[in-house]
Amino acid sequence: MASTSTLNLDGPPAILGALFKAKAEKKMTFEEIGKAIGRDEVWVAAAFYGQAKLTGEDISKLSNVLGIDGASLQSEIGDDWYPYRGLGPAVPTDPVVYRLYEGVLVYGNAIKAVIHEKFGDGIMSMIDCNITVDKKQAEKGDRVVLTFEGKYLAYSKW
Amino acid sequence: MASTSTLNLDGPPAILGALFKAKAEKKMTFEEIGKAIGRDEVWVAAAFYGQAKLTGEDISKLSNVLGIDGASLQSEIGDDWYPYRGLGPAVPTDPVVYRLYEGVLVYGNAIKAVIHEKFGDGIMSMIDCNITVDKKQAEKGDRVVLTFEGKYLAYSKW
Amino acid sequence: MASTSTLNLDGPPAILGALFKAKAEKKMTFEEIGKAIGRDEVWVAAAFYGQAKLTGEDISKLSNVLGIDGASLQSEIGDDWYPYRGLGPAVPTDPVVYRLYEGVLVYGNAIKAVIHEKFGDGIMSMIDCNITVDKKQAEKGDRVVLTFEGKYLAYSKW
Amino acid sequence: MASTSTLNLDGPPAILGALFKAKAEKKMTFEEIGKAIGRDEVWVAAAFYGQAKLTGEDISKLSNVLGIDGASLQSEIGDDWYPYRGLGPAVPTDPVVYRLYEGVLVYGNAIKAVIHEKFGDGIMSMIDCNITVDKKQAEKGDRVVLTFEGKYLAYSKW
Amino acid sequence: MASTSTLNLDGPPAILGALFKAKAEKKMTFEEIGKAIGRDEVWVAAAFYGQAKLTGEDISKLSNVLGIDGASLQSEIGDDWYPYRGLGPAVPTDPVVYRLYEGVLVYGNAIKAVIHEKFGDGIMSMIDCNITVDKKQAEKGDRVVLTFEGKYLAYSKW
Amino acid sequence: MASTSTLNLDGPPAILGALFKAKAEKKMTFEEIGKAIGRDEVWVAAAFYGQAKLTGEDISKLSNVLGIDGASLQSEIGDDWYPYRGLGPAVPTDPVVYRLYEGVLVYGNAIKAVIHEKFGDGIMSMIDCNITVDKKQAEKGDRVVLTFEGKYLAYSKW
Amino acid sequence: MASTSTLNLDGPPAILGALFKAKAEKKMTFEEIGKAIGRDEVWVAAAFYGQAKLTGEDISKLSNVLGIDGASLQSEIGDDWYPYRGLGPAVPTDPVVYRLYEGVLVYGNAIKAVIHEKFGDGIMSMIDCNITVDKKQAEKGDRVVLTFEGKYLAYSKW
Amino acid sequence: MASTSTLNLDGPPAILGALFKAKAEKKMTFEEIGKAIGRDEVWVAAAFYGQAKLTGEDISKLSNVLGIDGASLQSEIGDDWYPYRGLGPAVPTDPVVYRLYEGVLVYGNAIKAVIHEKFGDGIMSMIDCNITVDKKQAEKGDRVVLTFEGKYLAYSKW
Amino acid sequence: MASTSTLNLDGPPAILGALFKAKAEKKMTFEEIGKAIGRDEVWVAAAFYGQAKLTGEDISKLSNVLGIDGASLQSEIGDDWYPYRGLGPAVPTDPVVYRLYEGVLVYGNAIKAVIHEKFGDGIMSMIDCNITVDKKQAEKGDRVVLTFEGKYLAYSKW
Amino acid sequence: MASTSTLNLDGPPAILGALFKAKAEKKMTFEEIGKAIGRDEVWVAAAFYGQAKLTGEDISKLSNVLGIDGASLQSEIGDDWYPYRGLGPAVPTDPVVYRLYEGVLVYGNAIKAVIHEKFGDGIMSMIDCNITVDKKQAEKGDRVVLTFEGKYLAYSKW
Repeated sequence: MASTSTLNLDGPPAILGALFKAKAEKKMTFEEIGKAIGRDEVWVAAAFYGQAKLTGEDISKLSNVLGIDGASLQSEIGDDWYPYRGLGPAVPTDPVVYRLYEGVLVYGNAIKAVIHEKFGDGIMSMIDCNITVDKKQAEKGDRVVLTFEGKYLAYSKW
Repeated sequence: MASTSTLNLDGPPAILGALFKAKAEKKMTFEEIGKAIGRDEVWVAAAFYGQAKLTGEDISKLSNVLGIDGASLQSEIGDDWYPYRGLGPAVPTDPVVYRLYEGVLVYGNAIKAVIHEKFGDGIMSMIDCNITVDKKQAEKGDRVVLTFEGKYLAYSKW
Repeated sequence: MASTSTLNLDGPPAILGALFKAKAEKKMTFEEIGKAIGRDEVWVAAAFYGQAKLTGEDISKLSNVLGIDGASLQSEIGDDWYPYRGLGPAVPTDPVVYRLYEGVLVYGNAIKAVIHEKFGDGIMSMIDCNITVDKKQAEKGDRVVLTFEGKYLAYSKW
Repeated sequence: MASTSTLNLDGPPAILGALFKAKAEKKMTFEEIGKAIGRDEVWVAAAFYGQAKLTGEDISKLSNVLGIDGASLQSEIGDDWYPYRGLGPAVPTDPVVYRLYEGVLVYGNAIKAVIHEKFGDGIMSMIDCNITVDKKQAEKGDRVVLTFEGKYLAYSKW
Repeated sequence: MASTSTLNLDGPPAILGALFKAKAEKKMTFEEIGKAIGRDEVWVAAAFYGQAKLTGEDISKLSNVLGIDGASLQSEIGDDWYPYRGLGPAVPTDPVVYRLYEGVLVYGNAIKAVIHEKFGDGIMSMIDCNITVDKKQAEKGDRVVLTFEGKYLAYSKW
Repeated sequence: MASTSTLNLDGPPAILGALFKAKAEKKMTFEEIGKAIGRDEVWVAAAFYGQAKLTGEDISKLSNVLGIDGASLQSEIGDDWYPYRGLGPAVPTDPVVYRLYEGVLVYGNAIKAVIHEKFGDGIMSMIDCNITVDKKQAEKGDRVVLTFEGKYLAYSKW
Repeated sequence: MASTSTLNLDGPPAILGALFKAKAEKKMTFEEIGKAIGRDEVWVAAAFYGQAKLTGEDISKLSNVLGIDGASLQSEIGDDWYPYRGLGPAVPTDPVVYRLYEGVLVYGNAIKAVIHEKFGDGIMSMIDCNITVDKKQAEKGDRVVLTFEGKYLAYSKW
Repeated sequence: MASTSTLNLDGPPAILGALFKAKAEKKMTFEEIGKAIGRDEVWVAAAFYGQAKLTGEDISKLSNVLGIDGASLQSEIGDDWYPYRGLGPAVPTDPVVYRLYEGVLVYGNAIKAVIHEKFGDGIMSMIDCNITVDKKQAEKGDRVVLTFEGKYLAYSKW
Repeated sequence: MASTSTLNLDGPPAILGALFKAKAEKKMTFEEIGKAIGRDEVWVAAAFYGQAKLTGEDISKLSNVLGIDGASLQSEIGDDWYPYRGLGPAVPTDPVVYRLYEGVLVYGNAIKAVIHEKFGDGIMSMIDCNITVDKKQAEKGDRVVLTFEGKYLAYSKW
Repeated sequence: MASTSTLNLDGPPAILGALFKAKAEKKMTFEEIGKAIGRDEVWVAAAFYGQAKLTGEDISKLSNVLGIDGASLQSEIGDDWYPYRGLGPAVPTDPVVYRLYEGVLVYGNAIKAVIHEKFGDGIMSMIDCNITVDKKQAEKGDRVVLTFEGKYLAYSKW
């Protein structure tokens, strides 16, 4: 049975709270959950925030790993549910998220210019795109390595 | 002699147009210019857009490579000039830049969650941060690899 | 020689005005220009507004058809120039353009729902997308047929 | 009996959730529902989102097809209820919907120019307009064909 | 010869200033001009602000009445020029214009409700719409009578 | 007894829902209610949306006509309650209401110019203003006649 | 001869700069100018900012007092020119002007409530309104007395 | 006991509704309440809207006058509660409040200019400021006299 | 057990209300609480507003000092919860907070210029930053001393 | 002679560019200029950005120190000119200025709470406020010490 969350009009489905709760009770990290279900941690976190669509198999594995009811998950965020993506204010206020936005404001034109020079008149897809976060240790302190790997798509001419 | 560009109130200094013009006449890419002056191409492009500050040595090398007058560069965007960073509308309209913004909207919370789990209560610096764009060839078509490597900064408590 | 239009910071390059002027003098429609250079009229109009990138061959044909200097076009909007796409206010005020926007406001969720049902968790690309405008005669008055044909892109999972 | 949904001030009527729920239980697509009641799938989806007005006959058929109480539908979204159309943020965040918006930003002026050339000083109506979504198979992958067919309306002069 | 005003990107064409100037020199009101060319004063004023499209005949009459060069008008705002309609800020600041906007804020829902009750599920067209301003004398002071007469358009169902 | 609706901070008072409900049960139009209580239908609709203030006599008649409890109405939207006028987003999304807004964007300056020419330096009041909606039959289809009749107010000079 | 300032589209007419210049050369305050032409200083300052309309007699007196050419004033901001009122950003940034705005944010509801209690369902007109600024000396430092005296207008019911 | 209203994050404390309710039951005006507790009516209304801080003595008197429980008031909006001032949208929609805002838009620069001429480089405080609303009878109809009397504060130089 | 507050999507966790309530019951100031747990008062207040992350030890001390259940705090805002920082509107309306914002608007460029002159091309970190509020007594009245002490971070070049 | 800069409508007066230019030619820092004219460097920088008002004596000293024409300064930004304060976008994009804004977003409520606890119901003035920037050396790297010292102002009650 599908809930009204299919409407997607009131923000992410409430059942996502249960995912976070189960994760906390199991004291598992996104990395551990990701390994357990065969997905990257960033993608798993995106799914927890209602920003990625779990397959039936993902749901099945997840319900095993977290000890929660798969049928509820299936009915709320299963087959006939599709994420309404995009969360939060147009200009994010949280400093972690703002820094990413600042990267767009400050380096967006430069990144665009280099993509055009290296690839031509097109874009890096954010749909066919994998995102990873890694830790790199350095003398002056740890560094975050955030990587977007997206398909290059050329503009059609017709 | 410094110009009124020091005010930074009318957008990036006009002399940046001369940089782009010289680059076009020399038919050089940002990658080639970067190699010639010992900087990464993304950073060089950022400097061309008035989003990074060239050192005196950078200016000197750049004037050699592009065949433009170093003194003008020095007086306009030299020692006592500091970039006013951040260009364009709050929500970018160009599809290349928008895709980066979309990455923040869709995956920002997930990236934040994973950074916290891996590092703790802090952020990835966008100040002490290196950004690169690489091409990766794949069967189904080239992929853009965009990497942010920034220092992790923990929130102070006091 | 490339102009400062490469900066893309002051809106579409001024040379586009010359395109419109030549078109008016030749009394040609976008359809006629499109046929003469082997492109669709909507794409040609997009290029006139600085929203599509002409190839070297397009520029060559266009300068012949419109009787304008190809070298100027090449230096201003040629090889090393890439459009900064996206024009006008976030909510368009012109009624013709607003009606398209209204289509997004009113039917956007319905279109999204049907795309998901027919294709799965993905999008219709606006990069690899052809757009045409046709006239259809009907008893109660002519009808505009506006078609977007874009590649379906599935969300990656990783 | 009509509910306060007539006020239209709190977003689409809550009963729409029941429509989505019944649809999920019946495992029907919008296309199947559309065929069953004699409407196009996009229009049906629009009605589910509270963006189109069902006739009494539509409601009657729909209650049969989905096995839900027609009287409730009638009292909530029936005769004396009129949709308050327009859903979601001014700039959509979901990538599927955003791509349509991007089409307006990038190609809006071009579409306007071609409509004027083909039809004169007027608009394509979004009121007397039919919208369809089709799948077109192609070698390089399926393509979405989104068509708007709207009546041309000339500006009155008086 | 058409000017770059065809781009419509910098606001209404500069030649409109000449219209206002000529009108002031001739000390004519919009009403007088309207009568002289066979149009209503509100429509004429809209054309002066670049918000309505003059026909070739309108231009011809107008150049006679105001003693200005018809060829310039024709090349700037003639055949191949189409107004980009919509002027000023989203929320108008001038009290005269704001009052109209306030009418939408305060009475918009009531007007919508009555249109639906009287006509059904549709709108009053602002494209096929005539607007007049009249003076009505009353004991307690003159009253402005502003009338919109627009075609009723029913929503299509498909 | 007055409710917290006096605060006006959460939007129109909830009791307005009861008005709409009673109207639906009685199957009365705003026109019929208006006639029954001696008011115009647009004004009645405005009152239903919490945008006009009913007098004690209006409330009394209304409770008779609709068969609802006058005391509740009186305590919620009676003597010591004053409407907080202005509903909905700054730029309306519903096409019916948007068309009125579009009238302001496109014809606002023209209307202002004609008001000034006919009346002088002043405004049409939206406070001392009557608004009516009429149907006018025409060969090519019915037309909506929307009239604002407001007092002219001259700017004071001091 | 009237200039293009009649369009009102580029902000207040340039000739206002000449008023400010002449005022500075004459070292006159708005109070002194006001007394010389028989107007209050706030109203005179409003006229200098293009926010009030000078009569022919005002212009005549002003040109005498300030020693500037009355004919130029007349042609630029004379008979057929009407102010487009409302200057600056929606939320003012200058602290003097912001404090007035803050008065609206903090005390607006209270002022509204008291106006309703004292006068009924109506407003204080900002059109038929006189504004004065006075200095009041007090032990703890001078105080600004800013007074708005506007006609009360009752809402019409129809 | 203080409630969560101390967080100030959900708008004014709910207990303010009780104040309005008691006031309505007692059929008292703000003026009468003000006289009873020794405060001006505007300030009392501001306190009712959660925009001014009642002293312990104010609360005590108010609970006597209105016959409500002083302890509840004290725990909700007493000693350790401080108003989060500023209510409603950035641009007010209610005509009464909008007129005040319009006064800022139209006369803000003029008021600023006169304050500077009369007082120097400083502001009128909106913190140390008393606001009153009075009725003034005049032949052509009552007038509202709204007065702000605020301390002049000079800019520090350091 | 962690609650759905981990989602951070509905604003600060509800348990923060309990902190404020306990603080009020204990009649403790932030300064007193700060001293009791070994933190500065501003940081403690930030934690109460959900803008700083308490360590397990902080939570333990806080539950002792305020006499509240540490386990609840731990499950709601403990180990696996990270603040979503940034509260309130983009332009604050409360005068206390607005004055800080005004400091940015008026003195932001000056502060930036001096930071660059004293330190070079970099920023003052708001992450590794301590903030204190002190009272300074002066003849003409108490003064607030608000100090930000943040690490200087130089822009990386790469 | 005063220029049109008195209008303050086009941003800071152009002559400020001459100040920056002279400063660059003299290779002086704001600190050095400040010492030479007896003002703090932050205040001097604010004056250069048109955000503080120089006295006649300040102008005289400044023209000596920088070797520029005092009369021009006096006529442009002298006696009868008052700054229109507040520069740049509502949400600053430059990272240095943004960090200050972030301080308001993240710590604004905490600072407000502590000011109220320490001082009562009032604000820290940003008008009678001195701002300084100091460098503090620390083992882990230099720290910026930014101090606002502003007069406490209590809310009036009346």
